[in-house]
Amino acid sequence: MRARDLVTETPTVRLDTPALEAARLFAREDPPGLVVIDHDGKPLTVLPGSQVLRLGVPTYIQDDPALARVVDEASADVFLRALGDRTVEQCLPERHKELAVVGPEATVLELAALMASSHTPLVVVVDPQLGMIGVVTLATLMDRLVES
Amino acid sequence: MRARDLVTETPTVRLDTPALEAARLFAREDPPGLVVIDHDGKPLTVLPGSQVLRLGVPTYIQDDPALARVVDEASADVFLRALGDRTVEQCLPERHKELAVVGPEATVLELAALMASSHTPLVVVVDPQLGMIGVVTLATLMDRLVES
Repeated sequence: MRARDLVTETPTVRLDTPALEAARLFAREDPPGLVVIDHDGKPLTVLPGSQVLRLGVPTYIQDDPALARVVDEASADVFLRALGDRTVEQCLPERHKELAVVGPEATVLELAALMASSHTPLVVVVDPQLGMIGVVTLATLMDRLVES
Repeated sequence: MRARDLVTETPTVRLDTPALEAARLFAREDPPGLVVIDHDGKPLTVLPGSQVLRLGVPTYIQDDPALARVVDEASADVFLRALGDRTVEQCLPERHKELAVVGPEATVLELAALMASSHTPLVVVVDPQLGMIGVVTLATLMDRLVES
């Protein structure tokens, strides 16, 4: 069993995709993360949903989530509107996480070791000729591993 | 909208649950993480799937996932058997992550701030009288936020 046998499609976003569109993808597809494609069409990093939320949360509340209690319920309900026309690029931390990536021939052990060491539920599979061919998710990997 | 309106059930495990059983829960239910219940029946921490995998990966490969390539495909396919009769407790890092927890009255802004600051897609909701009443997942939160 190799990475190519476990590949699934995943929604991707570009650096200039609106952050609100990324939020909608999380709501609709519930992916473990969104693969961000750079200006050259190459996978750059994985955007976790928590970081899309972060961009909508005022800085003083990011520093101390308990301060969210000073905001009334009605205002809290619509806080994501603060995303406005901000982009995926603005959601990314300054030093974004290195992409967990394997070739199509990677074994399940290599995939598991990479997920474990990089604490990610999503590994990007890149073919040297074809470029990114999809991802392997933790759910897919676990599914096949418990069958074996 | 408050945490109590967004609560969903989630599979839980105990410290003495077999790690293989935890792996099966990840395969079957695809949760963002498993809530670990301590000996007193209280939620202790959240176990990410990547850490269940870690327990099955030999230490020398954890340190350098590229070394997984020296293991042949047939052996790699069944590596999770190495979990044997090990338990969830053994999957947890020595210093486990602090639990992201709110009361039933927390607003969506408080939930979002907590997910963002603790980089977790799962917040446990604890009622002072009833104890843990469920979790709010990032997917549920996003779903309701993009509707607002």
